[in-house]
Amino acid sequence: MIAPHPERAQIRLADVLVALGNPLRLSIIRVLADGGEHSCGSILDGVAKSTLTHHWRVLRDAGVIRQRPSGRENLLSLRRDDLDARYPGLLDSLLDAAKRDSTAD
Amino acid sequence: MIAPHPERAQIRLADVLVALGNPLRLSIIRVLADGGEHSCGSILDGVAKSTLTHHWRVLRDAGVIRQRPSGRENLLSLRRDDLDARYPGLLDSLLDAAKRDSTAD
Repeated sequence: MIAPHPERAQIRLADVLVALGNPLRLSIIRVLADGGEHSCGSILDGVAKSTLTHHWRVLRDAGVIRQRPSGRENLLSLRRDDLDARYPGLLDSLLDAAKRDSTAD
Repeated sequence: MIAPHPERAQIRLADVLVALGNPLRLSIIRVLADGGEHSCGSILDGVAKSTLTHHWRVLRDAGVIRQRPSGRENLLSLRRDDLDARYPGLLDSLLDAAKRDSTAD
Protein backbone atom coordinates (compact mmCIF):
# COMPACT_ATOMS: atom_id res chain seq x y z
CA MET A 1 0.00 0.00 0.00
CA ILE A 2 1.16 3.45 -0.75
CA ALA A 3 0.18 6.54 1.20
CA PRO A 4 -1.95 9.17 -0.52
CA HIS A 5 -0.24 12.11 -2.17
CA PRO A 6 -1.61 15.66 -1.99
CA GLU A 7 -3.33 16.81 -5.15
CA ARG A 8 -1.62 19.57 -7.09
CA ALA A 9 -4.04 22.20 -5.76
CA GLN A 10 -3.39 21.07 -2.19
CA ILE A 11 0.34 21.75 -2.36
CA ARG A 12 1.35 24.65 -0.13
CA LEU A 13 4.54 26.65 -0.45
CA ALA A 14 5.34 26.62 3.28
CA ASP A 15 5.14 22.82 3.30
CA VAL A 16 7.40 22.55 0.26
CA LEU A 17 9.98 24.85 1.85
CA VAL A 18 9.99 22.98 5.14
CA ALA A 19 10.37 19.71 3.24
CA LEU A 20 13.35 21.08 1.33
CA GLY A 21 14.88 22.81 4.35
CA ASN A 22 17.22 19.92 5.04
CA PRO A 23 20.57 19.16 3.39
CA LEU A 24 19.78 15.49 2.90
CA ARG A 25 16.42 16.18 1.29
CA LEU A 26 18.04 18.79 -0.95
CA SER A 27 20.49 16.09 -2.04
CA ILE A 28 17.59 13.76 -2.78
CA ILE A 29 15.80 16.19 -5.08
CA ARG A 30 19.06 16.94 -6.87
CA VAL A 31 19.27 13.24 -7.76
CA LEU A 32 15.60 13.11 -8.78
CA ALA A 33 15.99 16.26 -10.87
CA ASP A 34 17.09 14.12 -13.82
CA GLY A 35 13.39 13.43 -14.30
CA GLY A 36 13.59 9.67 -13.98
CA GLU A 37 12.17 7.22 -11.49
CA HIS A 38 14.65 5.96 -8.94
CA SER A 39 14.33 3.04 -6.55
CA CYS A 40 14.45 4.03 -2.88
CA GLY A 41 17.70 2.20 -2.35
CA SER A 42 19.56 3.75 -5.25
CA ILE A 43 19.42 7.44 -4.35
CA LEU A 44 21.72 7.96 -1.38
CA ASP A 45 24.41 5.69 -0.05
CA GLY A 46 25.33 5.39 3.58
CA VAL A 47 22.02 6.50 5.06
CA ALA A 48 19.95 4.11 7.20
CA LYS A 49 16.78 2.84 5.57
CA SER A 50 14.60 4.04 8.45
CA THR A 51 16.09 7.52 8.11
CA LEU A 52 15.39 7.56 4.41
CA THR A 53 11.82 6.34 4.96
CA HIS A 54 11.26 9.42 7.13
CA HIS A 55 12.64 11.72 4.46
CA TRP A 56 10.52 10.12 1.70
CA ARG A 57 7.44 10.73 3.81
CA VAL A 58 8.26 14.39 4.42
CA LEU A 59 8.88 14.99 0.72
CA ARG A 60 5.81 13.01 -0.33
CA ASP A 61 3.45 14.68 2.15
CA ALA A 62 4.58 18.11 0.95
CA GLY A 63 3.87 17.16 -2.66
CA VAL A 64 7.52 17.27 -3.73
CA ILE A 65 7.96 13.61 -4.75
CA ARG A 66 5.76 10.78 -5.93
CA GLN A 67 6.14 7.21 -4.69
CA ARG A 68 5.00 4.35 -6.89
CA PRO A 69 5.06 0.73 -5.80
CA SER A 70 7.00 -1.54 -8.12
CA GLY A 71 7.47 -5.13 -7.07
CA ARG A 72 8.98 -5.18 -3.61
CA GLU A 73 10.08 -1.58 -3.52
CA ASN A 74 8.94 1.94 -4.31
CA LEU A 75 10.03 4.06 -7.19
CA LEU A 76 10.47 7.76 -6.49
CA SER A 77 10.21 10.71 -8.83
CA LEU A 78 10.12 14.47 -8.55
CA ARG A 79 6.69 16.06 -9.10
CA ARG A 80 8.14 18.62 -11.46
CA ASP A 81 4.94 19.06 -13.50
CA ASP A 82 2.91 19.84 -10.40
CA LEU A 83 5.51 22.10 -8.82
CA ASP A 84 6.17 23.98 -12.06
CA ALA A 85 2.42 24.47 -12.55
CA ARG A 86 1.91 25.78 -9.03
CA TYR A 87 5.11 27.83 -8.73
CA PRO A 88 6.69 28.54 -12.11
CA GLY A 89 10.46 28.79 -11.90
CA LEU A 90 10.71 27.92 -8.24
CA LEU A 91 12.00 24.37 -8.55
CA ASP A 92 14.75 25.36 -10.97
CA SER A 93 15.80 28.21 -8.68
CA LEU A 94 15.90 25.84 -5.74
CA LEU A 95 17.93 23.24 -7.63
CA ASP A 96 20.36 25.90 -8.77
CA ALA A 97 20.67 27.24 -5.24
CA ALA A 98 21.24 23.74 -3.85
CA LYS A 99 24.00 23.22 -6.39
CA ARG A 100 25.66 26.50 -5.39
CA ASP A 101 25.51 25.57 -1.70
CA SER A 102 27.03 22.15 -2.33
CA THR A 103 29.82 23.68 -4.42
CA ALA A 104 30.58 26.25 -1.73
CA ASP A 105 30.95 23.69 1.03
CA MET B 1 22.06 45.39 21.63
CA ILE B 2 21.37 43.59 18.42
CA ALA B 3 22.20 39.96 17.80
CA PRO B 4 24.86 39.12 15.22
CA HIS B 5 23.79 38.37 11.68
CA PRO B 6 25.37 35.61 9.58
CA GLU B 7 27.79 36.87 6.97
CA ARG B 8 26.76 36.41 3.36
CA ALA B 9 29.07 33.40 2.93
CA GLN B 10 27.60 31.76 6.03
CA ILE B 11 24.05 31.73 4.67
CA ARG B 12 22.85 28.19 3.96
CA LEU B 13 19.98 27.28 1.68
CA ALA B 14 18.44 24.75 4.08
CA ASP B 15 18.30 27.41 6.82
CA VAL B 16 16.71 29.93 4.45
CA LEU B 17 14.06 27.40 3.39
CA VAL B 18 13.22 26.42 6.95
CA ALA B 19 12.96 30.10 7.87
CA LEU B 20 10.56 30.73 4.99
CA GLY B 21 8.60 27.51 5.54
CA ASN B 22 5.93 29.26 7.56
CA PRO B 23 2.94 31.24 6.27
CA LEU B 24 3.50 34.13 8.67
CA ARG B 25 7.16 34.48 7.77
CA LEU B 26 6.27 34.35 4.09
CA SER B 27 3.86 37.23 4.74
CA ILE B 28 6.64 39.15 6.45
CA ILE B 29 9.06 38.87 3.55
CA ARG B 30 6.31 39.89 1.13
CA VAL B 31 5.98 43.15 3.08
CA LEU B 32 9.75 43.63 3.22
CA ALA B 33 10.08 42.91 -0.49
CA ASP B 34 9.41 46.59 -1.23
CA GLY B 35 13.07 47.10 -0.32
CA GLY B 36 12.49 49.56 2.50
CA GLU B 37 13.15 49.42 6.20
CA HIS B 38 10.10 48.73 8.33
CA SER B 39 9.68 49.09 12.05
CA CYS B 40 8.91 45.83 13.85
CA GLY B 41 5.46 47.02 14.84
CA SER B 42 4.39 48.11 11.38
CA ILE B 43 4.64 44.89 9.44
CA LEU B 44 1.85 42.61 10.63
CA ASP B 45 -1.25 43.52 12.57
CA GLY B 46 -2.91 41.26 15.10
CA VAL B 47 0.11 39.17 16.00
CA ALA B 48 1.50 39.19 19.55
CA LYS B 49 4.82 40.95 19.97
CA SER B 50 6.46 37.88 21.54
CA THR B 51 5.36 35.79 18.57
CA LEU B 52 6.81 38.31 16.16
CA THR B 53 10.07 38.47 18.12
CA HIS B 54 10.43 34.73 17.56
CA HIS B 55 9.83 35.10 13.84
CA TRP B 56 12.32 37.97 13.50
CA ARG B 57 14.94 35.80 15.17
CA VAL B 58 14.34 32.85 12.84
CA LEU B 59 14.53 35.08 9.77
CA ARG B 60 17.59 36.96 11.06
CA ASP B 61 19.52 33.83 12.07
CA ALA B 62 18.95 32.35 8.62
CA GLY B 63 20.29 35.49 6.96
CA VAL B 64 16.96 36.48 5.41
CA ILE B 65 16.44 39.80 7.17
CA ARG B 66 18.58 42.47 8.81
CA GLN B 67 17.65 44.14 12.09
CA ARG B 68 18.99 47.62 12.80
CA PRO B 69 18.36 49.40 16.09
CA SER B 70 16.76 52.80 15.70
CA GLY B 71 15.78 54.66 18.84
CA ARG B 72 13.62 52.40 20.94
CA GLU B 73 12.82 49.88 18.25
CA ASN B 74 14.40 47.84 15.48
CA LEU B 75 14.09 48.46 11.80
CA LEU B 76 13.83 45.39 9.58
CA SER B 77 14.82 44.92 5.98
CA LEU B 78 15.17 42.05 3.55
CA ARG B 79 18.78 41.02 2.76
CA ARG B 80 18.06 41.00 -0.95
CA ASP B 81 21.63 41.83 -2.00
CA ASP B 82 23.04 38.93 -0.02
CA LEU B 83 20.37 36.45 -1.04
CA ASP B 84 20.56 37.43 -4.71
CA ALA B 85 24.34 37.12 -4.62
CA ARG B 86 24.24 33.68 -3.02
CA TYR B 87 21.22 32.30 -4.90
CA PRO B 88 20.45 34.30 -8.06
CA GLY B 89 16.74 34.31 -8.85
CA LEU B 90 15.68 32.37 -5.78
CA LEU B 91 14.19 35.21 -3.79
CA ASP B 92 12.08 36.44 -6.68
CA SER B 93 10.83 32.91 -7.33
CA LEU B 94 9.92 32.53 -3.68
CA LEU B 95 8.11 35.87 -3.56
CA ASP B 96 6.20 34.99 -6.71
CA ALA B 97 5.29 31.58 -5.29
CA ALA B 98 4.15 33.14 -2.02
CA LYS B 99 1.94 35.53 -3.95
CA ARG B 100 0.39 32.64 -5.90
CA ASP B 101 -0.30 30.70 -2.70
CA SER B 102 -1.96 33.67 -1.05
CA THR B 103 -4.12 34.30 -4.12
CA ALA B 104 -5.17 30.65 -4.23
CA ASP B 105 -6.28 30.56 -0.60
